[in-house]
Amino acid sequence: MAIPVSPLAVPLPELPAVAGVRLGAAAAGIRYKGRTDVVMAEFPAGTTVAGVFTKNLCPGAPVDWDRAALANGKARVLVVNAGNANVFTGKAGADAAKATAVAAAELVGCPVKQVFLASTGVIGELLPHERLTAALPALHGTLSEASWEAAARGIMTTDTFPKASTRVASIGGTEVRITGIAKGSGMIAPDMATMLCFVFTDAKIPAELLQSALAKGVDGSFNCTTVDSDTSTSDTVLLFATGQTKHKKVPAEGGASMLRDFRAKLADVLLDLALQVVRDGEGAQKLIRIDVTGAVSAKSAKRVAMAIGNSPLVKTAIAGEDANWGRIVMAVGKAGEPADRDKLSIGVGGTWMARDGGVVPGYDEAPVVAHMKGREIDIAVDLGLGSGKATVWTCDLTHGYIDINGSYRS
Amino acid sequence: MAIPVSPLAVPLPELPAVAGVRLGAAAAGIRYKGRTDVVMAEFPAGTTVAGVFTKNLCPGAPVDWDRAALANGKARVLVVNAGNANVFTGKAGADAAKATAVAAAELVGCPVKQVFLASTGVIGELLPHERLTAALPALHGTLSEASWEAAARGIMTTDTFPKASTRVASIGGTEVRITGIAKGSGMIAPDMATMLCFVFTDAKIPAELLQSALAKGVDGSFNCTTVDSDTSTSDTVLLFATGQTKHKKVPAEGGASMLRDFRAKLADVLLDLALQVVRDGEGAQKLIRIDVTGAVSAKSAKRVAMAIGNSPLVKTAIAGEDANWGRIVMAVGKAGEPADRDKLSIGVGGTWMARDGGVVPGYDEAPVVAHMKGREIDIAVDLGLGSGKATVWTCDLTHGYIDINGSYRS
Repeated sequence: MAIPVSPLAVPLPELPAVAGVRLGAAAAGIRYKGRTDVVMAEFPAGTTVAGVFTKNLCPGAPVDWDRAALANGKARVLVVNAGNANVFTGKAGADAAKATAVAAAELVGCPVKQVFLASTGVIGELLPHERLTAALPALHGTLSEASWEAAARGIMTTDTFPKASTRVASIGGTEVRITGIAKGSGMIAPDMATMLCFVFTDAKIPAELLQSALAKGVDGSFNCTTVDSDTSTSDTVLLFATGQTKHKKVPAEGGASMLRDFRAKLADVLLDLALQVVRDGEGAQKLIRIDVTGAVSAKSAKRVAMAIGNSPLVKTAIAGEDANWGRIVMAVGKAGEPADRDKLSIGVGGTWMARDGGVVPGYDEAPVVAHMKGREIDIAVDLGLGSGKATVWTCDLTHGYIDINGSYRS
Repeated sequence: MAIPVSPLAVPLPELPAVAGVRLGAAAAGIRYKGRTDVVMAEFPAGTTVAGVFTKNLCPGAPVDWDRAALANGKARVLVVNAGNANVFTGKAGADAAKATAVAAAELVGCPVKQVFLASTGVIGELLPHERLTAALPALHGTLSEASWEAAARGIMTTDTFPKASTRVASIGGTEVRITGIAKGSGMIAPDMATMLCFVFTDAKIPAELLQSALAKGVDGSFNCTTVDSDTSTSDTVLLFATGQTKHKKVPAEGGASMLRDFRAKLADVLLDLALQVVRDGEGAQKLIRIDVTGAVSAKSAKRVAMAIGNSPLVKTAIAGEDANWGRIVMAVGKAGEPADRDKLSIGVGGTWMARDGGVVPGYDEAPVVAHMKGREIDIAVDLGLGSGKATVWTCDLTHGYIDINGSYRS
């Protein structure tokens, strides 16, 4: 089945080199035919690394591998394959991950614990790692500073467009670059991490500071998105800092204040990538932003927003271009968070439709109807209880989702 | 849009009279054309009542009304309308509920607090209660002991078949009858209650004992089902005991032991009705039973089972007749309950497919493929950690669900 490109797709941005990052893609024939499915990136000695991973309790073998490798805070190479997630594959899966890491470490000449891995695709089938390692030597010979689009395409599964984002940040007056690529379309309900996302910078930043910047950025981006409420077993975000651009030294102790702009731009890149993933949500026709205000806490606001964003009835109503605020009321009420029906206000596209437990007197549906026909839908919910707020992004639930997930094994 | 009858539908059983219960249905034109939409049931003086209601924090006005009325433990009349849920309608909604109760109380000649109400249908629109009350006098004149099918049909919304169940139970050697009707198809994720369900018996049982029997029965039936994870604002289960059959007196103190058979048969009726609701799940093509064993507790087992039953990826895979156990692994892991990937076993249709963190050696897919083509799908998950177990029922997620919920306002 050919899946058309998402109507919410955005074009790939210009992606200049990130000093120290050389990357590329190759076709290893792991599952797909006639396309690239393995991506490699090599970094210079001294590159620091940060990572956040799925909270799913049945993680894949590459997630186990990376968690252990992350303890060293150093990275020289990243190997990613698409088509097979190497999840729930037992000891054979762990062996496949190790064999891949050993092969990559030999090519680059580095300790095996400086190799990072990620796999995405079908769960429960053995990864044919011999095909993967057989493809690595030739791929290693082709790595270049320019192959960003190839890398972004090589990690796709049911994605309909490649996803990348780039920003320039200042550290002590010196410009550094931050570039990320991501994949993801279904099984999207990130919890402390998400999908596959790889971010690269030429800044020189101690691993501890890199980790804290990444965790904060992921919390405000990927962790605020959902496509289908299903948390993947492979969610991985890795951030590599090559240190190839000379700037004022960022000390491990007390260096955080120098990273204000870096952290802001990193957060931008992560949010841009997270929204690209939602825009490519399986079957998505509309991007939905849900702003919840007036909750008793930020945590409570987020739970209410997620209850709305994960409600099949809300998502199908939006697919049908129906501003069905009754279903939004239902989702607020089922969230289990403090809510008072008679203090609740609901708006769509900037028009408040319901307030104080009932429809707004003289409510004019016309601007709401027009808004619902658009590609980007804004829902506002004010609980009227406190100052807690949160924003969550999701997409609608359409026949496309059923087609993609009911018709063949992905 | 015409919705075809669910392929999982079951025929309406024979429904003999329940001594003391007189009921009927009429067309009040509240929302639907050319069909009945208001149901009334009258009970003799001395009838006791029990009820459980939605935990959704934005409940409808009829739920508020019933909660208050239940304090008295006595009932003389039940009025139900379909087409408008009278939810999120503010003070006007509460007034509409009260006006309906006053009109019914006058017809029957009883205190207004012995009237029970339920409404189902669209949320957020004012209930045109004048049409409802205008229809009551003629409807009251037609009540009979035989009108069970009319009542079961009169409460339907997107339901494709009427739902009823009946059992005979013994109290101290005397036979009593228990008959229930229910409606429900979407917005089904009951939490301590569900949808609209009305159960009637001719036994004479103190209200406190009736309440405890009902709460227990609902916990093992409706609360173990889900169609779409969306908890309704109107979920209501009411149980009326007319006391018209003479049997050994059931004392309020210490009478519970006499109700062992009654409670068992009541649980049967409730489970039968709950499964009929799942069989009529919006767009359902397959009934799915999920048995989780080996959890650290029954509560933990139920959460894992619900995570599987609410996973869009599991439900679409089953719609596609794909025994995609990778998605079941994902759902187990996302539940957030204790789980160990390497102790997990997964079976479908009696065949264990995965065990000890990987596929079962020599696994033969043929019987599983055959099972997946059937109407009733059994999933077994053993967590291998303890003795906690739970069973949950759900249905698959198909294009029909999108059609029903994305195409018009229900």
